[in-house]
Amino acid sequence: MEKNSSNMIPLAENSPNKQETVCIFGTGDFGRSLGYKMLQCGYSIVFGSRNAQTSSLIPKGAEVLSHGEAAHKADIIIVAIQRQHYNFLTELSDVLHGKVLVDVSNNLKINQYPESNAEYLAQLVPGAKVVKAFNTVSAWALQSGTLDASRQVFICGNDNKAKQMVMDIVRTLGLTPLDQGSLVAAKEIENYPLQLFPMWKFPIYLAIGLSVFFFFYCLIREVIYPYVYENKDVSFFIAITIPNRVCPIVALILLALVYLPGIIAAILQLHRGTKYSRFPDWLDKWMLCRKQLGLVALVFAFLHVLYTLVIPIRYYVRWRINVYVISQVKDNRTDPFYNTNGWISDSYVALGILGFFLFILLGITSLPSVSNSVNWREFRFVQSKLGYLTLILCTAHTLVYGGKRFLSPSMYKWYLPAAYMLSLIVPCFVLAIKFVLIFPCIDRPLTQIRQGWERNSKGSEQSHYNDSKSAV
Amino acid sequence: MEKNSSNMIPLAENSPNKQETVCIFGTGDFGRSLGYKMLQCGYSIVFGSRNAQTSSLIPKGAEVLSHGEAAHKADIIIVAIQRQHYNFLTELSDVLHGKVLVDVSNNLKINQYPESNAEYLAQLVPGAKVVKAFNTVSAWALQSGTLDASRQVFICGNDNKAKQMVMDIVRTLGLTPLDQGSLVAAKEIENYPLQLFPMWKFPIYLAIGLSVFFFFYCLIREVIYPYVYENKDVSFFIAITIPNRVCPIVALILLALVYLPGIIAAILQLHRGTKYSRFPDWLDKWMLCRKQLGLVALVFAFLHVLYTLVIPIRYYVRWRINVYVISQVKDNRTDPFYNTNGWISDSYVALGILGFFLFILLGITSLPSVSNSVNWREFRFVQSKLGYLTLILCTAHTLVYGGKRFLSPSMYKWYLPAAYMLSLIVPCFVLAIKFVLIFPCIDRPLTQIRQGWERNSKGSEQSHYNDSKSAV
Amino acid sequence: MEKNSSNMIPLAENSPNKQETVCIFGTGDFGRSLGYKMLQCGYSIVFGSRNAQTSSLIPKGAEVLSHGEAAHKADIIIVAIQRQHYNFLTELSDVLHGKVLVDVSNNLKINQYPESNAEYLAQLVPGAKVVKAFNTVSAWALQSGTLDASRQVFICGNDNKAKQMVMDIVRTLGLTPLDQGSLVAAKEIENYPLQLFPMWKFPIYLAIGLSVFFFFYCLIREVIYPYVYENKDVSFFIAITIPNRVCPIVALILLALVYLPGIIAAILQLHRGTKYSRFPDWLDKWMLCRKQLGLVALVFAFLHVLYTLVIPIRYYVRWRINVYVISQVKDNRTDPFYNTNGWISDSYVALGILGFFLFILLGITSLPSVSNSVNWREFRFVQSKLGYLTLILCTAHTLVYGGKRFLSPSMYKWYLPAAYMLSLIVPCFVLAIKFVLIFPCIDRPLTQIRQGWERNSKGSEQSHYNDSKSAV
Ligand SMILES: Cc1cc2nc3c(=O)[nH]c(=O)nc-3n(C[C@H](O)[C@H](O)[C@H](O)COP(=O)(O)OP(=O)(O)OC[C@H]3O[C@@H](n4cnc5c(N)ncnc54)[C@H](O)[C@@H]3O)c2cc1C
Ligand SMILES: Cc1cc2nc3c(=O)[nH]c(=O)nc-3n(C[C@H](O)[C@H](O)[C@H](O)COP(=O)(O)OP(=O)(O)OC[C@H]3O[C@@H](n4cnc5c(N)ncnc54)[C@H](O)[C@@H]3O)c2cc1C
Ligand SMILES: Cc1cc2nc3c(=O)[nH]c(=O)nc-3n(C[C@H](O)[C@H](O)[C@H](O)COP(=O)(O)OP(=O)(O)OC[C@H]3O[C@@H](n4cnc5c(N)ncnc54)[C@H](O)[C@@H]3O)c2cc1C
Repeated sequence: MEKNSSNMIPLAENSPNKQETVCIFGTGDFGRSLGYKMLQCGYSIVFGSRNAQTSSLIPKGAEVLSHGEAAHKADIIIVAIQRQHYNFLTELSDVLHGKVLVDVSNNLKINQYPESNAEYLAQLVPGAKVVKAFNTVSAWALQSGTLDASRQVFICGNDNKAKQMVMDIVRTLGLTPLDQGSLVAAKEIENYPLQLFPMWKFPIYLAIGLSVFFFFYCLIREVIYPYVYENKDVSFFIAITIPNRVCPIVALILLALVYLPGIIAAILQLHRGTKYSRFPDWLDKWMLCRKQLGLVALVFAFLHVLYTLVIPIRYYVRWRINVYVISQVKDNRTDPFYNTNGWISDSYVALGILGFFLFILLGITSLPSVSNSVNWREFRFVQSKLGYLTLILCTAHTLVYGGKRFLSPSMYKWYLPAAYMLSLIVPCFVLAIKFVLIFPCIDRPLTQIRQGWERNSKGSEQSHYNDSKSAV
Repeated sequence: MEKNSSNMIPLAENSPNKQETVCIFGTGDFGRSLGYKMLQCGYSIVFGSRNAQTSSLIPKGAEVLSHGEAAHKADIIIVAIQRQHYNFLTELSDVLHGKVLVDVSNNLKINQYPESNAEYLAQLVPGAKVVKAFNTVSAWALQSGTLDASRQVFICGNDNKAKQMVMDIVRTLGLTPLDQGSLVAAKEIENYPLQLFPMWKFPIYLAIGLSVFFFFYCLIREVIYPYVYENKDVSFFIAITIPNRVCPIVALILLALVYLPGIIAAILQLHRGTKYSRFPDWLDKWMLCRKQLGLVALVFAFLHVLYTLVIPIRYYVRWRINVYVISQVKDNRTDPFYNTNGWISDSYVALGILGFFLFILLGITSLPSVSNSVNWREFRFVQSKLGYLTLILCTAHTLVYGGKRFLSPSMYKWYLPAAYMLSLIVPCFVLAIKFVLIFPCIDRPLTQIRQGWERNSKGSEQSHYNDSKSAV
Repeated sequence: MEKNSSNMIPLAENSPNKQETVCIFGTGDFGRSLGYKMLQCGYSIVFGSRNAQTSSLIPKGAEVLSHGEAAHKADIIIVAIQRQHYNFLTELSDVLHGKVLVDVSNNLKINQYPESNAEYLAQLVPGAKVVKAFNTVSAWALQSGTLDASRQVFICGNDNKAKQMVMDIVRTLGLTPLDQGSLVAAKEIENYPLQLFPMWKFPIYLAIGLSVFFFFYCLIREVIYPYVYENKDVSFFIAITIPNRVCPIVALILLALVYLPGIIAAILQLHRGTKYSRFPDWLDKWMLCRKQLGLVALVFAFLHVLYTLVIPIRYYVRWRINVYVISQVKDNRTDPFYNTNGWISDSYVALGILGFFLFILLGITSLPSVSNSVNWREFRFVQSKLGYLTLILCTAHTLVYGGKRFLSPSMYKWYLPAAYMLSLIVPCFVLAIKFVLIFPCIDRPLTQIRQGWERNSKGSEQSHYNDSKSAV
């Protein structure tokens, strides 16, 4: 559906049946845009304004009256005014009594005021039914029709009927209303459009931190060390060689960190014998950002794949191969083929390919429209079972890559082990504990606990009702 | 929108207006989770329980009463009890008369009982209006707010008003209700969360079967044969070389099998002169899993691309090139460049790239959110027209790859033709028949038949009304 | 959710409560399919037909009556007849008075008739409440259950209640109703299913035009020139070498053209001092197809990546490297390693990889389900900030690729500069102007203008109300 232009939907000018009238306080940018859109969708619009004269900016077909007169004409009043100017509404409290007041305002900063704008409005006009809505919608998007970002309109309010009326308008405008409960939720809703990927912050900062650390680690081992000891300038390694060391390492560690909290949670639940005690806060937060952590890991894995695939077209690599062949010719020898090397080289690449493929699969299932079309069991199967398989393949990929080099002392420059060895610590730990957790003698009580059973519960209630949803 | 934590939506504690009261029978895991969520969304909750005492597990703000008292207080009663314990409900049939009973239960196995739990409930309490709902939602997901998997709540029931009431609750909880018709649909709905990718089973098994067959076929030709005749150990081919033979073959065959049923259907429809006779069952099933078949083919094509791109970084390949160059130097010759080989090599790669790109495009358009935003004509254009183009390009890619080798007898080891030759049979067959079917003299009657025209129809009705939807 | 087969949802045969009755005029393909589906979902169906006899094609459970009798039985009448046969409805205007008439018809061509079919119907039967709906749904898809394409049902009509009734039916059938306003919108809705990617036309034609131009440009420089002057036949360059020149060039130019209109708009807005004058039509259209333009650019970038990654497996490339090594051996020299070349080669590849990664990220955020789950600020951040970063990286990639070659006269064959130089013009221009526009002294007035402020506005209204949505 590509009907972006706002001109496409014709105005219902002489529509036969009486239309619902909506009043908008404020003729600023947002008020006008919303009014324009609502006119298009067949509403009658009356603007409430301090100087009741139609300006050229007011959408055609809308009336402009004084605030009081305008409010009289409609049951729903949309307050498209900044919070600082709300106080004049107290004078209108008689007219506004029993009416639905829709607060659309946003602030400049998160938690700018002690109470949300909508709650403040409700205090000012106690007789009105205040509903928070539309604050996540952009005036420009409404006007230009390019509503590519969120069409979700979060709604809250204490009066269910009033909410229902606002939700009907939202639906008619082609947007998706989402009921968020009572007016207490307004604070949350007002903060929402000011947020910039809040759930992504921790994963991204973590990834940057790890990247920086491993970048300098590799820089020391692979650029500074040869410079100091062999006086070799390989500073151009900074462009590809070192990023291609850092990316797989960060990807693997992040991937392991996706599955670590589930293990900690399991141990905690086993230890406590119940799932009803709250997890510590850090664990809760960690568990909630696993999706983002996993997707950041996927980004690094993707970059690793690209960096690896361009290896043969790099000037440096071609030159090295070149020198290698010529040196053989000069020495009049042909290096023999070692079967073991063939096996190692091919199998670590193959493991990497399969791991990357499953990684991508996890990424695709986390697209909202895909995850929404699978059932819970299928989602768990992909995310948990295939997710662990991904971790196993990627860890094996790194292990086989290490191959025989693990013990070679030449790998330890300035006593620093190769970076990939460090990257194996967390994944191996996660896999080892998980291996223990899937033993039946541990898995069975855990499953029971997760189905609501409690070790120290006395009530017979539990055992009688149990969980009616037996399948996980 | 990333508001996953359940703590974020505040409870409406002293909400001014009277809220709808919902009763939940059963204080097990699911009952409590649902109650907790509904409290958050502004409902009054009363639990019905055998021993009416609030335990610490009951969400704050909810009442716990005896079953009878609790049922009295609400019009909707959610039965969050296992089916085995339903029989006590018969005693309450007076209180439950006329009420809406929501069955949320699941079973452990598909088709565990002769009739669905919801129908069984309806038999036990004939006076109540039974609605099936919520069984696809996970208790844990409800509680933790991580509703990444399906937000779809399938609903069925014989009373439309009752269904409507339940659907309102579902929407308020931020989930998507899907009306599935009368209570007969409950069986289907109860089986749903127990399924694990049912439509994917056939395509995946088929792909595995084909892969195994071609794996051993290639193993014989490329590993065992040289071992037997030349005593050459190339067992490491198992890691990459042979998978990279198998993947493109399976991808191509599966892709052809996506378009084969459409051709069989067309021939059947032409033969029968009507589209209203049912297809044989196997054809019906095949046609319904074409999407999955196509996506599995895409997976194999994707793996083939990765396996191919890593070729130049394989130790074995580098060694072979190395040896080749040195041998030229030793023989003091420089192998000349053959223009034909340049053409063949470049054009089969180019065909492969274009085919793969279209393949990906097909994959992207089959993402639910994308396919939902194109109209029917556009979807058919991509899936049918571009799909055939993909098949043509991929077949041509394989044909050109074969190049001059087709007739070379050295290709037949133990009288076995190269595996890629076998892979060409189905696609060439499909393309040949499709070529015949698009001749106007065959296409015209087919189009008519698909628009509802019948060769042996007597009624004038047909010709008069025709299909009011003339555009396909 | 994969319940595609229509057999899966059982018919509610002896459903206890009275069901809503819907009448369908016309027993053609679409009427029957719709009737079948509605029966499944629990409606009572009565067909209105010229000869009121049940044929074998009529879905079981439906009645067939004369038009008048059928219309009597229902409040909603679905008119599944072709427009040419509408006139008989005038005779029934008494029976149809006050009823809801649903027009489902489509035409064969865009704008085939002066007025839409639905408006024509409304003129014929003035007493009825005409609603346009269902015309975007395919009869075959309804019947076979394979509703992969759009489930969106566009609805318009002058009577809100009538629309609501139709929307209820749509929802019950598992489809998504979208209210498009009054009956004037019917024309648009009727054209919709006849469209084939209308927003994509301009970007695709532009991309094809650019591709053809640069293809021949490169052909002259790289195939014809060596043929004429050196008598070298490199015609096989047509398969990969030249496409791999064309793809990155077109990708870069298209990417720059995505960000050019925003700059022109900004300059216009600054010049005019208001955002409320309409942009010229071409600019409006250009701005609305930026998404498509960007995605086409992504396609070309993707092809460029694939074409580049296959370089080392091309026969021609291998042969050239081969010859190069042998020539060194013959001359008894080993070409030294140039650090600068190492830097240039690695850094242009690294820039390309990062640019491509961001490109992909832009593509992923433009998937409907993803863009719908981010808020406006986040969407702008990705599309505008990261978008410009992509443009910078891709431009830098091309500049560094050029490296020292820019001034080398050997690059000018027949006075033609290398194609990549031409591709740099638009992106460098866009980046230069953007660089000027982000200076605070220019950015501040622009931001004010975009928030609704007007340079020549007299009203105090503006400054008072301002925009209540302060955050962009
Ligand atoms: C590329 C990529 C994409 C990803 N996308 C997503 C995504 O879209 N969504 C997402 O959520 N994750 C995503 N992840 C993260 C990760 O895959 C999942 O979080 C995964 O489910 C974790 O598996 P686990 O076995 O550790 O889960 P666990 O949390 O250990 O859960 C295991 C099982 O126990 C149950 N369980 C856990 N805790 C409880 C409890 N307290 N009470 C009752 N039952 C409980 C669960 O129902 C589950 O069945 C992604 C990861 C990657 C790498
Ligand atoms: C990567 C990939 C992804 C895919 N994703 C999808 C997907 O998301 N959804 C999907 O459905 N398929 C998908 N497919 C499968 C495939 O592309 C489609 O099924 C494709 O439409 C088949 O084309 P066809 O021409 O053989 O169709 P046919 O079934 O032959 O249909 C051709 C035309 O005839 C019409 N028609 C067919 N049968 C009838 C009939 N009985 N009565 C009236 N009209 C009829 C149809 O409307 C259609 O216009 C995918 C394939 C691949 C490779
Ligand atoms: C791969 C790819 C995918 C893409 N996908 C999408 C997509 O899904 N959706 C999409 O829209 N674009 C898409 N694009 C195109 C492009 O990224 C966006 O259009 C991008 O937003 C343009 O950035 P800009 O800074 O030039 O925007 P501008 O139009 O210059 O906007 C900059 C800011 O000014 C504001 N603004 C602009 N004009 C006005 C005005 N008249 N009044 C008030 N405020 C105004 C906007 O709110 C915005 O915040 C895609 C591009 C690529 C390469």
